[in-house]
Amino acid sequence: MERLHESESLTPFCPRFHHAVELVGRRWTGAILRAMFAGNTRFSDIASTVPGLSDRLLSERLKELTMEGLVERVAHRDSGRVEYHLTTMGHELAPVIECLSDWADRWVPVPPGAAVESATSVSAEAIARG
Amino acid sequence: MERLHESESLTPFCPRFHHAVELVGRRWTGAILRAMFAGNTRFSDIASTVPGLSDRLLSERLKELTMEGLVERVAHRDSGRVEYHLTTMGHELAPVIECLSDWADRWVPVPPGAAVESATSVSAEAIARG
Repeated sequence: MERLHESESLTPFCPRFHHAVELVGRRWTGAILRAMFAGNTRFSDIASTVPGLSDRLLSERLKELTMEGLVERVAHRDSGRVEYHLTTMGHELAPVIECLSDWADRWVPVPPGAAVESATSVSAEAIARG
Repeated sequence: MERLHESESLTPFCPRFHHAVELVGRRWTGAILRAMFAGNTRFSDIASTVPGLSDRLLSERLKELTMEGLVERVAHRDSGRVEYHLTTMGHELAPVIECLSDWADRWVPVPPGAAVESATSVSAEAIARG
């Protein structure tokens, strides 16, 4: 924050920033990237991690991210298994994801619907633990 | 980046992060916030800073950001002048904007259309300077 205030060097409009924020901010993309940063590499794992995300949209977003260079699609010849990995370009978004996570923890209340989900998953965990 | 790799503490899905990234990533919102971080406070200044942004959409986005608590609308009684200011919540997005700017500088090529615009504005400046 201080850097922006002190230097005032931020250009009011930057086409590269604009492209980046529209890309990362596209509906569902942030959640998909977060799921991948958390270690999910398979389509079905990412799909089940993000509530409300349809297979069609996940497929579309993964294609976009692959085309933009953030994600690499890896098909294993032996097993036929397909995985999606963050490229270096994708990995280097980590500070953005971290900063936005910190900000969200500080400023965003848990959405009502999500609170129920969260409570549900906690009690499911509690049940699993016995 | 290392923090994410070392700690592996990132939850695969977080509803607060999801809300944050969908909010900041909404079409035009990133560019509007950047224009405000660069010091623009008036509707017309923000509108003219972001190429392609219509008054209707700027108005909609500013209302959303105000409702979400990132922006405050200030109407000066004496002059009738209206200004939009980032709140503390909004200002604290600075590290996110910075990290994403750094990432964009490193990874995003200047979009072809924008390059022309940029060149145009440089030559306009050159003309202004004589």
